[in-house]
Amino acid sequence: MLTLEQRDRMDVVLVSPRNPLNIGAVARAMANFGFEHLAVAAAFDPHWREAKSAVGAPDLLQNAKSTEHLADAVAHCTLVAGTGTLTHRKPEQPIVSLPGLGPLIEREMARGGRAALVFGPEKHGLTRDDLSFCNVLVEIPTDPRQPSMNLGQAAAVCLYELACRPTQPSRDAGTESLAANSGQLDRLAFLIEEAMTAADYSPKIMQEANRHDLRVLLRRLGPSAHDTRRIMGLFRRILWRMARDSKHKS
Amino acid sequence: MLTLEQRDRMDVVLVSPRNPLNIGAVARAMANFGFEHLAVAAAFDPHWREAKSAVGAPDLLQNAKSTEHLADAVAHCTLVAGTGTLTHRKPEQPIVSLPGLGPLIEREMARGGRAALVFGPEKHGLTRDDLSFCNVLVEIPTDPRQPSMNLGQAAAVCLYELACRPTQPSRDAGTESLAANSGQLDRLAFLIEEAMTAADYSPKIMQEANRHDLRVLLRRLGPSAHDTRRIMGLFRRILWRMARDSKHKS
Repeated sequence: MLTLEQRDRMDVVLVSPRNPLNIGAVARAMANFGFEHLAVAAAFDPHWREAKSAVGAPDLLQNAKSTEHLADAVAHCTLVAGTGTLTHRKPEQPIVSLPGLGPLIEREMARGGRAALVFGPEKHGLTRDDLSFCNVLVEIPTDPRQPSMNLGQAAAVCLYELACRPTQPSRDAGTESLAANSGQLDRLAFLIEEAMTAADYSPKIMQEANRHDLRVLLRRLGPSAHDTRRIMGLFRRILWRMARDSKHKS
Repeated sequence: MLTLEQRDRMDVVLVSPRNPLNIGAVARAMANFGFEHLAVAAAFDPHWREAKSAVGAPDLLQNAKSTEHLADAVAHCTLVAGTGTLTHRKPEQPIVSLPGLGPLIEREMARGGRAALVFGPEKHGLTRDDLSFCNVLVEIPTDPRQPSMNLGQAAAVCLYELACRPTQPSRDAGTESLAANSGQLDRLAFLIEEAMTAADYSPKIMQEANRHDLRVLLRRLGPSAHDTRRIMGLFRRILWRMARDSKHKS
């Protein structure tokens, strides 16, 4: 059960929502359960405008952030939880059943982090690429015969779980250091990719796949902000050295 | 958490629902969480017919029972739970917060009973008269500033609570791959240290401290055996490249 202060450090992010009624329903559920921060990534502008101008739309919808890409919407977050069902895929992220999400977020909040809960488009949910920005995949334990939930209802269920369900107090949270946020991980990934390129690590055709794998790997490892700075320092040094030696060579 | 057999002894009852979309949403949430028995009391016939004829309406909507009065819809039930918020009234029934409803129904089921969960019309909820057919009033603990939930979302939250809660917070261990063992981490650390040296990353005097930090860092991150092989591949490549360029230089 997140406190109001903790809920204030949590974003709900919709990726390319199609139906203005669903956007409104998510905003309403957020208001019902005391969440304030909504962001929309890669919105379809007409639908997004329609949702915002609906009669009775709550303030948090007016104040919602709109970004072009999911990466920007979650850049400041240290724990990004994507939602979805598992019917058609074997995800690369650890799976957590919705009742287990609360403790995970509480632990992150206890060490000063910020969380995001991400919902995909109505038709197909989050893509593999979207999920590569997520630390975990949250599964609502629905009936296998009818697993797919309506967007507004899925959001209501998740937010109810986080706002209203008592959870066990977590241990030792204070001793862990703050995780790197999504933007920091992206900057680290960028440096590593530069080093890969400089070292001719793999053919150009693999670049997209490597980039994806690297994103998934960094989120799985979950380095702290401090770790991330140190690793970046090492890679900057390696890059500098490779550049210097290349110059000498030519 | 109700078993499927217990869910089969549970009715969802809508009193005079106004919006066919909401009726459909309730039916969808029921299908998502494995509930079969829907009844509508005092339906507005045109709306009810429209909901039933909607494209993609689940079977349980086709098979729903329609009664003139709530009393008939719940006549065969031993535990009738009405839903609502408490803002405007002091109910005559005992109030149970939604997280407490599951145990109540389970106890009733254990002694062979049958339960109903009753939702009122969208505008004003269950009347005092409706509630007089209920054993308890279930309250979803919403934010007092925005207590009133959308009908479809309220149903989804209640049915999630009954079908899925409580469960163990499970990080699906089976999907996580095998962690690298200590020896593998040491071999990786050795390679990274070689790269640090080749890149003149830090003065020699820091070597011991860096080695220690690296060991601690790798154990904290806990890469899998597979991750470790991939990262080693990258560092081998970087080392090879730096060695080659150094040779060119000299």
